Amino acid sequence: MNSFGLLYRITSFGESHGAAIGGIIDGIPAGIKIDLDLVQKELDSRRPGKSELTTSRNEKDRLEILSGFRGNTTLGTSIGFLVRNTDIKSEDYDALQDIFRPGHADYTYQMKYGICAESGGGRSSARETVARVVSGAFAQQILQQWHDIQIDSQIQEIGGEISPEAQKEAILQAKKEGDSVGGIIECRVKNIPIGLGAPVFDRLEADLAKAMLSIPATKGFEIGSGFASARMKGSEHNDEMEMKQGKSVFLTNNAGGILGGISNGEDIVFRVAFKPASTIQKLQQTVNKNGEEVTLENPGGRHDPCVVFRAVPIVEAMCAHVLLDHVLRSRATTSPIK
Amino acid sequence: MNSFGLLYRITSFGESHGAAIGGIIDGIPAGIKIDLDLVQKELDSRRPGKSELTTSRNEKDRLEILSGFRGNTTLGTSIGFLVRNTDIKSEDYDALQDIFRPGHADYTYQMKYGICAESGGGRSSARETVARVVSGAFAQQILQQWHDIQIDSQIQEIGGEISPEAQKEAILQAKKEGDSVGGIIECRVKNIPIGLGAPVFDRLEADLAKAMLSIPATKGFEIGSGFASARMKGSEHNDEMEMKQGKSVFLTNNAGGILGGISNGEDIVFRVAFKPASTIQKLQQTVNKNGEEVTLENPGGRHDPCVVFRAVPIVEAMCAHVLLDHVLRSRATTSPIK
Amino acid sequence: MNSFGLLYRITSFGESHGAAIGGIIDGIPAGIKIDLDLVQKELDSRRPGKSELTTSRNEKDRLEILSGFRGNTTLGTSIGFLVRNTDIKSEDYDALQDIFRPGHADYTYQMKYGICAESGGGRSSARETVARVVSGAFAQQILQQWHDIQIDSQIQEIGGEISPEAQKEAILQAKKEGDSVGGIIECRVKNIPIGLGAPVFDRLEADLAKAMLSIPATKGFEIGSGFASARMKGSEHNDEMEMKQGKSVFLTNNAGGILGGISNGEDIVFRVAFKPASTIQKLQQTVNKNGEEVTLENPGGRHDPCVVFRAVPIVEAMCAHVLLDHVLRSRATTSPIK
Amino acid sequence: MNSFGLLYRITSFGESHGAAIGGIIDGIPAGIKIDLDLVQKELDSRRPGKSELTTSRNEKDRLEILSGFRGNTTLGTSIGFLVRNTDIKSEDYDALQDIFRPGHADYTYQMKYGICAESGGGRSSARETVARVVSGAFAQQILQQWHDIQIDSQIQEIGGEISPEAQKEAILQAKKEGDSVGGIIECRVKNIPIGLGAPVFDRLEADLAKAMLSIPATKGFEIGSGFASARMKGSEHNDEMEMKQGKSVFLTNNAGGILGGISNGEDIVFRVAFKPASTIQKLQQTVNKNGEEVTLENPGGRHDPCVVFRAVPIVEAMCAHVLLDHVLRSRATTSPIK
Repeated sequence: MNSFGLLYRITSFGESHGAAIGGIIDGIPAGIKIDLDLVQKELDSRRPGKSELTTSRNEKDRLEILSGFRGNTTLGTSIGFLVRNTDIKSEDYDALQDIFRPGHADYTYQMKYGICAESGGGRSSARETVARVVSGAFAQQILQQWHDIQIDSQIQEIGGEISPEAQKEAILQAKKEGDSVGGIIECRVKNIPIGLGAPVFDRLEADLAKAMLSIPATKGFEIGSGFASARMKGSEHNDEMEMKQGKSVFLTNNAGGILGGISNGEDIVFRVAFKPASTIQKLQQTVNKNGEEVTLENPGGRHDPCVVFRAVPIVEAMCAHVLLDHVLRSRATTSPIK
Repeated sequence: MNSFGLLYRITSFGESHGAAIGGIIDGIPAGIKIDLDLVQKELDSRRPGKSELTTSRNEKDRLEILSGFRGNTTLGTSIGFLVRNTDIKSEDYDALQDIFRPGHADYTYQMKYGICAESGGGRSSARETVARVVSGAFAQQILQQWHDIQIDSQIQEIGGEISPEAQKEAILQAKKEGDSVGGIIECRVKNIPIGLGAPVFDRLEADLAKAMLSIPATKGFEIGSGFASARMKGSEHNDEMEMKQGKSVFLTNNAGGILGGISNGEDIVFRVAFKPASTIQKLQQTVNKNGEEVTLENPGGRHDPCVVFRAVPIVEAMCAHVLLDHVLRSRATTSPIK
Repeated sequence: MNSFGLLYRITSFGESHGAAIGGIIDGIPAGIKIDLDLVQKELDSRRPGKSELTTSRNEKDRLEILSGFRGNTTLGTSIGFLVRNTDIKSEDYDALQDIFRPGHADYTYQMKYGICAESGGGRSSARETVARVVSGAFAQQILQQWHDIQIDSQIQEIGGEISPEAQKEAILQAKKEGDSVGGIIECRVKNIPIGLGAPVFDRLEADLAKAMLSIPATKGFEIGSGFASARMKGSEHNDEMEMKQGKSVFLTNNAGGILGGISNGEDIVFRVAFKPASTIQKLQQTVNKNGEEVTLENPGGRHDPCVVFRAVPIVEAMCAHVLLDHVLRSRATTSPIK
Repeated sequence: MNSFGLLYRITSFGESHGAAIGGIIDGIPAGIKIDLDLVQKELDSRRPGKSELTTSRNEKDRLEILSGFRGNTTLGTSIGFLVRNTDIKSEDYDALQDIFRPGHADYTYQMKYGICAESGGGRSSARETVARVVSGAFAQQILQQWHDIQIDSQIQEIGGEISPEAQKEAILQAKKEGDSVGGIIECRVKNIPIGLGAPVFDRLEADLAKAMLSIPATKGFEIGSGFASARMKGSEHNDEMEMKQGKSVFLTNNAGGILGGISNGEDIVFRVAFKPASTIQKLQQTVNKNGEEVTLENPGGRHDPCVVFRAVPIVEAMCAHVLLDHVLRSRATTSPIK
């Protein structure tokens, strides 16, 4: 299924080299003012081709809103939108059509569907994230307007490096070698209301984990203390509380802002691991559709030595998506009606 | 919402000290033979009170099937089941009713619902996992019958220790100190058919991530190379392929068995991080419902220095759940009808 | 799937001669007071065996609540409940096990599932409506508390008769003949807030239609002017408006309280057609599982000449279900947050 | 929510005078060949402006497929599509912007959303059915290819008239008077496999009822014997069975092809009542947004004296939608795997 979310829901479509990428957003109340320039800006920040550090594909990605608005105000109906694919050079890929590129979904798509898009990665291309960024940008604006929620993601690591300089060096080195590097993004959410989330299956961290692992190239998710918690004692890990100016506060935040699946008012903090991009220019051993072993000499298409920068707006978008969905759920079912 | 899964779905209910924990399973085809003794055995392995290493609460947990079966064969209708709570000593908890226990969901439940169960952790207690283990045990048997799928989880780390002896030592030490330790479980799935999963939002690893992070006390999830992938180069990370006895095979499995959200036929391998149990016997600083600072002297109830052992069947259950759901989806929509 | 509703959701289980009928209710906010005696009373009114006009099966139907409550107040968690089947005389049915009873689901269940419950109608028995009545009774109380919504169903026709005396006569006549009669129930909802419902697929009348046609033995649904509207002119049918004491009001209610899928504040009025009960004592020609023609001499079990009385609480329950679901949806997504 | 269906799902968007109407279709397996000309033809038959009997708005409605296809073969991914709105004369409607037109959703939309589209009926316009017709046309082709299922709808009544000549007369008369007439459509499905549907909530007739009542201007639904069943005796209504050439067959079809929510192999037969179109040219008394009583003199826009013709492809589309959804569900969960 190509939908995400229960009450705030994006349904998306689009192959990388098809006519367009787009989606339908459901669940935005009527009468909300949206700054569409800001949405376009988020789209731009996802776009490759802006610096020496990323691929040179220049997609422009102009957002076209097809419904759900009167001026800049939502109507309460579903919002249809699309972004045309304008920079399609399918010949770049043609030679590759029959080869299962290592790290890509070519093999699994072929085995599952028995057919693939005419060129490009089709639905498995990260280009599908265009739709997520649009719906996430809407969500971010609504979260800000309603609760002043701030979502801020930072690159924590690239190629194992912590400092920006070393990270840039690692990327340029990988580019020179025709190789790629991965990284880790940390996302922090401020001003989150207490009480978002649910017990049992729809815990807030569970929905965030699904959202993050649904982003292409992700390999891991951790909340708060994360994997490090496995090496801590309960007495170190438990976040103690005290009263401060008449308000209960936590002394630490190993929980990452969520207890028992429900936000506790502290910052929500989580990290997402991205593998190095699968498209590289080094020789790779693989097989093709005819069951022949082949050497992939030059994967062609564009080569992006590090996708982590471009993933930042996607992480924020998916985070906003989950949060707005839970804000809407809370409005529906949590509080006794006044 | 208290449901999990699209086509194979468990809906559950039950507070830790209420009358019963139970659930309804939807999506099992008619005519499947289920060994209910094996289901009970899985339940037993989740149960505390079996050794010096775990809490002494002895819940018995006898499974009662209320519908959906004729003998040991499924009818194709929904399966209602319950497990009575028999060992309820609510007085153990009474003194704690007004205190927000560190690491527990007391605070967030109070803020969200403004009311809590009469005693015990209510819905936030790990006792809710009884329902997951039942539906997961059903799923495991079906996966085995249909595809010989084997799900096998191992404790990889406890208290930072790798060897069983050191792990046991760490647990006993924590017990002596009234403290607790966390750990990491690795789950491996063999004989998985190629083609399970979906592009974009319902990627197999995304659904596994949600399933795992919905288990109480989990703080992280990683698939295949996981967080380590962030420090690898593309040329190291990409799993190359070759032909072997006329079949395409992967030379490595950094992907963890999933490419582009879809299983590639290799073992699915993932790891889940568990924090140390929140209930400890050390003094802890916290606050109560009246906004007073209090010292939690003796949390009472049972104290389990390490919940990781008991989590093993839960990890396997939730994994089986996700896989069967995707097997059913594949049957519905993937292959052209024959 | 055995679930109904998006935000207010009942998931049910149970075969007519199994251990129990039950369900899980999701979506009730915390802190709601429920009069459980009233719920039991609704259950009792659904029960057969109370008069000469209905079957003599005496099921008692004592409601057992398993979770989600503290005293009579909801916890905000899922509510598990069950009703034991106490009056099971499966021998009544044994002789029928292999015969496809006309009007019953025996044939379609056998063809779909290839297996049936040990005795009785299994999941196809109207006994499953026990779970609907419980969740509907909860919904009715909440609708009343929040909006003073009143749901009132009346029998409009039985055996083609309008007057109660003639209806009773028709039923007794049918009973004497070993036959059965159908009827029509009209349901009217007062004090409905304006704005419930949704455009396009989840129109309020569409969800009501689904709810009603999911009740056993129903054959038709109409809202407001219903089938008669097909013979009216637009100028007759359109409900004109005027101002009355500063408020806009409708002069007529052909719409049945819903315009464009959304409640307009007028009474919601709809009608449901029930076929005559399928179990009769007249000779009927049919076939059995072995592909032999047989004459069904005495269907055994209980014989209820008219199920329409017992359907009244079920119609109200399902109506309440749909309305509360839409009230919750409205709270989530309609109005701009204050 | 703007989605319909569980496994075969259409999600739609679009206001009548916005940029476009469109949707996303989910659930079509890969490798299916679709004749897109036939889909366009269905769209054309929904289009007004083709004869003196319908409105003169000429929308063209050229279908643009944006994803999910390679040539005429499905990729197994979501199918995005749109139809541009080309004949937008919003000035026709401008004078009406503040008036609640009788029979239309203007009032309820205003009360629910507090904002309306710039012109036209917005999301409440029947123009949204464009998206349904597209996804229904896809479904019809798949049902035909897989099971040779034939869906055939006929107009049974217009303005109370049975014969085509009298119907035409009634429409022309209504047109002359500036009035409108309603009607009844009967839909018959042949070659339906036995076993589609589900017990309890997702009965096939329940899903059909929802589908039909979600179509604009519908007021009633009945299956098989329908409302007439309420006046029949069980002995008349029950469909008896016999063996014919080694196959069990039904002697009558009062069930309308569905027993216990599951198809029994007989033709599925149902009827849908349509009210007379709300837009008429007669004087009507109503109120406006300012709470003033006004006389609606000339509703402007286009006036279609009878929408029932145009509803035929919509009824078939929604019927196909429900059936394909249940075919996919059956593939997933019904039969034991071979």
